Amino acid sequence: MSELEHITYEVADRIATVTIDSPQTKNAFTALMGKELIDAFRRADEDDDVKVIVFTGKGRFFCPGADLSSGANTFDYDARDSAAVDVAGDGGETIEGVRRDGGGRVSLAIAALRKPIIVAFNGAGVGVGSTMTLPCDIRIASEDAKFGFVFAKRGIMPEAASTWFLPRVVGINKALEWVYTGRVFGAQEALEAGLVSRVVPGDQLMDTTYELARELVEGSSALTMAAGRKMLWGMLGADNPWEAHRLDSKGIYELGKMADAKEGVTSFLEKRDPEFPARIPADYPEWLPDFPGPQPVE
Amino acid sequence: MSELEHITYEVADRIATVTIDSPQTKNAFTALMGKELIDAFRRADEDDDVKVIVFTGKGRFFCPGADLSSGANTFDYDARDSAAVDVAGDGGETIEGVRRDGGGRVSLAIAALRKPIIVAFNGAGVGVGSTMTLPCDIRIASEDAKFGFVFAKRGIMPEAASTWFLPRVVGINKALEWVYTGRVFGAQEALEAGLVSRVVPGDQLMDTTYELARELVEGSSALTMAAGRKMLWGMLGADNPWEAHRLDSKGIYELGKMADAKEGVTSFLEKRDPEFPARIPADYPEWLPDFPGPQPVE
Amino acid sequence: MSELEHITYEVADRIATVTIDSPQTKNAFTALMGKELIDAFRRADEDDDVKVIVFTGKGRFFCPGADLSSGANTFDYDARDSAAVDVAGDGGETIEGVRRDGGGRVSLAIAALRKPIIVAFNGAGVGVGSTMTLPCDIRIASEDAKFGFVFAKRGIMPEAASTWFLPRVVGINKALEWVYTGRVFGAQEALEAGLVSRVVPGDQLMDTTYELARELVEGSSALTMAAGRKMLWGMLGADNPWEAHRLDSKGIYELGKMADAKEGVTSFLEKRDPEFPARIPADYPEWLPDFPGPQPVE
Repeated sequence: MSELEHITYEVADRIATVTIDSPQTKNAFTALMGKELIDAFRRADEDDDVKVIVFTGKGRFFCPGADLSSGANTFDYDARDSAAVDVAGDGGETIEGVRRDGGGRVSLAIAALRKPIIVAFNGAGVGVGSTMTLPCDIRIASEDAKFGFVFAKRGIMPEAASTWFLPRVVGINKALEWVYTGRVFGAQEALEAGLVSRVVPGDQLMDTTYELARELVEGSSALTMAAGRKMLWGMLGADNPWEAHRLDSKGIYELGKMADAKEGVTSFLEKRDPEFPARIPADYPEWLPDFPGPQPVE
Repeated sequence: MSELEHITYEVADRIATVTIDSPQTKNAFTALMGKELIDAFRRADEDDDVKVIVFTGKGRFFCPGADLSSGANTFDYDARDSAAVDVAGDGGETIEGVRRDGGGRVSLAIAALRKPIIVAFNGAGVGVGSTMTLPCDIRIASEDAKFGFVFAKRGIMPEAASTWFLPRVVGINKALEWVYTGRVFGAQEALEAGLVSRVVPGDQLMDTTYELARELVEGSSALTMAAGRKMLWGMLGADNPWEAHRLDSKGIYELGKMADAKEGVTSFLEKRDPEFPARIPADYPEWLPDFPGPQPVE
Repeated sequence: MSELEHITYEVADRIATVTIDSPQTKNAFTALMGKELIDAFRRADEDDDVKVIVFTGKGRFFCPGADLSSGANTFDYDARDSAAVDVAGDGGETIEGVRRDGGGRVSLAIAALRKPIIVAFNGAGVGVGSTMTLPCDIRIASEDAKFGFVFAKRGIMPEAASTWFLPRVVGINKALEWVYTGRVFGAQEALEAGLVSRVVPGDQLMDTTYELARELVEGSSALTMAAGRKMLWGMLGADNPWEAHRLDSKGIYELGKMADAKEGVTSFLEKRDPEFPARIPADYPEWLPDFPGPQPVE
């Protein structure tokens, strides 16, 4: 991985931590940050030593949204010079002749992960700083964190595939209210709506987050977690439970033969903690589903 | 719009208010009321001067359900004379040889709107008075409001497409419990289940509702709200987030060139309130999705 | 129905009660138990005298999960002798060459019911003891009940089509957290997440459950409940509300002609309790939808 400008990446105790850390732009989202995030998530996903991913920010903000320093033409690609266009984080890629949404590229990279990803909101996650975290599995917030789907205040499109994810996370009516008002709101409202699962004092945020991450590293099978991630998200798109039954039947057979299942039952009968050997991607069951249906983009 | 019998329609400050107001039938739903509601919603949707729609009732009830004054044969179309048949509000339209459900015609007219619609429950919304509001975006209730999916108490079909909307609004298990028991319940239970987002004293209901409506009129882009409405509801039917990403990418490009986006960024940088010029339908992006899939009826 | 080994089945006051009762294995799930449950649910569904189904357990546990007495090879079908294989409860049935998941067979049998089914958790429902209840309509728990989606602690596949049902019951993020941690949790957490709708002291569990069951038997139309069950669950798989509108229109016409609708309106106008004559399956409307889409297995 080349030198990182806007984020940091480190692995310790089988936990990869991806941290937005761009003091000069106060963690505002740029094309380069998007690219670095995607690379970091993929790196964690490809590393057999990584079992859980933590996504957080450093400083006062998690990510306060898109970098608006280009002014009125920030979102007008045609009116901007080609270098600036890359603020969209699309790396020049197009879809149906239009540049791909940079926040959405991050969202979809997260959606494709085979490992649990936990967000620790150290501060405000607004705009793309809210939306790109929606495909993450668990969100924990500092008391000081703020959130906002502020697109209606900017006159732009709600992005990062948030219109697919948000109603599935907080329900359709709360999603509509947040998107209509564009209101910035606090951690308590996020908790009540289910946008985050826990709110803790700022100085306990990382301890709480790593405690949960370690619980998964030490006690949970990476195979079951991969199956859980792919099935739970993937079956959101299934019309009925029969497809789950078909895959469950395959999974019970395939996973049942593997070492994790034997260790799981044995450790339970011996009343001791399990030590699961499976690693992802080395032992990843390739038949697990991705989001079903046509996937027009990577 | 011809003379209205069962509702009133007025526009002020870019807010259209549709009020059920039928003292002689205590706001009970009839064929004519359904037709008038559909016409009123479409009128608001077609009016560039309207930015937000408020749906409420006048008197003791919002709408206590279908007019049962025809007695035992109320729902037996074959046994009733042709004039009475029209109580279904279907205007004689059929689908697969069967008359279209009148409440469903209202629901689907609401679902098709391109503008935010807020319900203010001044009193009981029972039966179709509950179900036809499910495709609305935000529901606020007076403390005195009551709700009920009372179909099991009448031996009739749950209607107005409520079996599609209700589980998406309050979850599958709460929906099942309400439909099985047919129980009439109060505003507090509706709040806890997410059927309404707020409960206020009756004398504050319209102030609270118009305060929210004005917030949207003054601070939110009509373009973003249209995109939010179509995408959030529409993506409920998408198997995966890729379709949202495709449309987001298009939307960021298309909306990014428009005046609202420039005003949104400029006003933010200048730390002042935005004044968004876009009007719907004049500036409506026609490529925004409707509910996907075959739409057998209008 | 032949002699039952692991469950009991009784009908009283139009309520069928299916009770897991296997003292020698502490209610652990086995192949035979799965088969007996499926037969019992089908028996209740086919009996015109049964209007509501109650599913509970006897003793300290509801069902503490799969029988692990076979040790490390419990889930390794290839390594086990053919008799033991049947612990999967698949009766030898295969799907794409793989034995069908036994818990999933129970889940799908429950999903296919045409009558309300209420679960009363007398104690721990863990693993398949949690998952197979997800397609039930209403879950009530004793204060002492415990729950757990413990698959990650055993290194096995989450089963019983739970990855389809669980996010629809408690939301995607809570589902992910429970499946990742494999944590066993109490009734209060289950209540807050919506896994159960009510928690009561253990000695009031069956009274509370039967009170609700009786309310449905005495006050609700079996026809409306059948329509509600098939539509609410079935429309979860519909991309948009138009299919519901089509079926509503048919249902209002078809049910409107039947005796339950006449009794429902008449009793309402006469201000007395209704006495609905319809019985299921005798009066079941065969056009009601099942879960849509291809159903590769029974």
